[in-house]
Amino acid sequence: MPELRKDPIIGRWVIIATERARRPDQFAGTQDSPPEKPCPFCEGHEDQTPPEIYALRPKSTAKNSPGWDLRVVPSISPFLMIEGDLDRRGKGLYDLMNGVGAHEIIIETDEHVDNISDLSEEQITKVISCYIDRINDLEKDKRFKYVLVFKNHGWAAGAGRLKHTRSQLIATPINPKRVKEELVGARNYYDYHERCIFCDMIKQELDTKSRVILDIDGFVAVAPFASRFPFETWILPKKHSSDFTKMDLNSRTMLARILKMTLAKLKKGLNDPPYNFVIHTTPFKRQKLGYWRSIDNDYHWHIEIMPRLTRVAGFEWGTGFYICPLPPENAAEFLRGVQV
Amino acid sequence: MPELRKDPIIGRWVIIATERARRPDQFAGTQDSPPEKPCPFCEGHEDQTPPEIYALRPKSTAKNSPGWDLRVVPSISPFLMIEGDLDRRGKGLYDLMNGVGAHEIIIETDEHVDNISDLSEEQITKVISCYIDRINDLEKDKRFKYVLVFKNHGWAAGAGRLKHTRSQLIATPINPKRVKEELVGARNYYDYHERCIFCDMIKQELDTKSRVILDIDGFVAVAPFASRFPFETWILPKKHSSDFTKMDLNSRTMLARILKMTLAKLKKGLNDPPYNFVIHTTPFKRQKLGYWRSIDNDYHWHIEIMPRLTRVAGFEWGTGFYICPLPPENAAEFLRGVQV
Repeated sequence: MPELRKDPIIGRWVIIATERARRPDQFAGTQDSPPEKPCPFCEGHEDQTPPEIYALRPKSTAKNSPGWDLRVVPSISPFLMIEGDLDRRGKGLYDLMNGVGAHEIIIETDEHVDNISDLSEEQITKVISCYIDRINDLEKDKRFKYVLVFKNHGWAAGAGRLKHTRSQLIATPINPKRVKEELVGARNYYDYHERCIFCDMIKQELDTKSRVILDIDGFVAVAPFASRFPFETWILPKKHSSDFTKMDLNSRTMLARILKMTLAKLKKGLNDPPYNFVIHTTPFKRQKLGYWRSIDNDYHWHIEIMPRLTRVAGFEWGTGFYICPLPPENAAEFLRGVQV
Repeated sequence: MPELRKDPIIGRWVIIATERARRPDQFAGTQDSPPEKPCPFCEGHEDQTPPEIYALRPKSTAKNSPGWDLRVVPSISPFLMIEGDLDRRGKGLYDLMNGVGAHEIIIETDEHVDNISDLSEEQITKVISCYIDRINDLEKDKRFKYVLVFKNHGWAAGAGRLKHTRSQLIATPINPKRVKEELVGARNYYDYHERCIFCDMIKQELDTKSRVILDIDGFVAVAPFASRFPFETWILPKKHSSDFTKMDLNSRTMLARILKMTLAKLKKGLNDPPYNFVIHTTPFKRQKLGYWRSIDNDYHWHIEIMPRLTRVAGFEWGTGFYICPLPPENAAEFLRGVQV
């Protein structure tokens, strides 16, 4: 069973992933590419993944057989395990709990396509609906407080060697530090201004224009003012909403459009760079948190896209400061100019 | 002039490094190795660096001439600029200031040696004394609140292509988020227990033994309980001290010994892996901070060594959680067994 361990000084939780553990001597030497295997995510290879949790497929087809549009399967090397209780406990001054959670792979298409931006808007809409369905399903499990949906594209961004477009989700029994920091920051702003900080940011960005990459169909893609990475891009709904899962079908289609266009600009303009994206939405509302009172007014869901074109070094790890070697205004100007 | 920009939601500062800025199209494509150039850090090439700020050299030798043991020069592509005022200001809801600071390169030896662990204990003692001298000198500049000393070893850890052992320091006009988090966490523990959390941790580690790598001469090297990275190692003085610069010469020699041995174990056991290390010490004591009152009792300086053997991916960036694929107990056992 993996363990969740808490740094006693700053309270940062770490997953000690025993299920994925490698032997110490396996870390020596360079990481060579394993030989290319037949892709287990392609149609016809359903027996090479764990049984599906969810699929979009005609009723005439059987589970784990061909004929699907999209499948969700458990990770074969999960960071967290679905069975068991949390069993929070101490060990001297240290805190830990069992690594309970869900870790699922969303196979976004039955075809061997590498980049989500090469899927149709219709297919990406299905992917977004799948995210929503899976979050809503996992909310029923009372052990979980948050679901992070994310994507690793390209080796430098943490993806495996298999080039078949997929996203992942991890349901966690605690609220992640980064999300808490956003909730607290947004609440403090709301307490003072009685306005959502994200809504104010969107307004200022649309007025200034210099960091706007796309402004279409109720969504905006911007290079954030304090970008950590070159070409970092956030996609936000222009209409206030704290909860990603509350999007109607029309909004999902519009989100699919701006996500496809943004990622296509990155792919075309920067020669298919490695990137991560993460969806930040409100936690499950199942307990009184310090930051709870007005969360639906305070918080604003968004997607953060982080191209991985620079290396993170000692200064960043030591300080929590990031160094971005490209002003976001220049990044936005460049991406606006890439025709897709 | 680089800019320091603050994320308005979570308050994270970012350096937008205009002096190092690349054009957007320079990020496209893969990062190929530049051709090997003659090393500007070797003795006899003093004219290939900016003029030295500090050097250990016989009085009979001239500045910026051969004959030195160790030199400190300004970075040729600094993240922050030494001239100018901070000029804190707003831009709508955003906060920024000028990127004022110091960025120095500590050339640890005149010989073309790649890894600090291959220097003599005597030479490493000189490096440690140099860190202390430079921090003390930069403390006189009233614009600075903190100096981070760090090292990037190997390409994946952010080092350049030149294999000549060196460290860096950056003096910043604000206290870094990661250091503040440690100060606040340590203060909270002290308020409750009236004991230093680091001292308690050291005691527990020495009792448990399973995460101890080295225990010699007043210092301990441990794999932290909540390690973020495989083989993460912290070196701490066993005697309480908040301030790295207060070490006497005897302690510096002992620190040189444990640092050399720890890094030699990593090099030998893991085939010279890329790593970062950072020194966390108390900030300059020049203003009333919320966490100030008892900082000399609360806080405990230490060195964090982070081998870079895994890739950081979407989940980590999205949550602030880390996933460590090797239990620290196994890492410590492995490193204890490496003979150096």
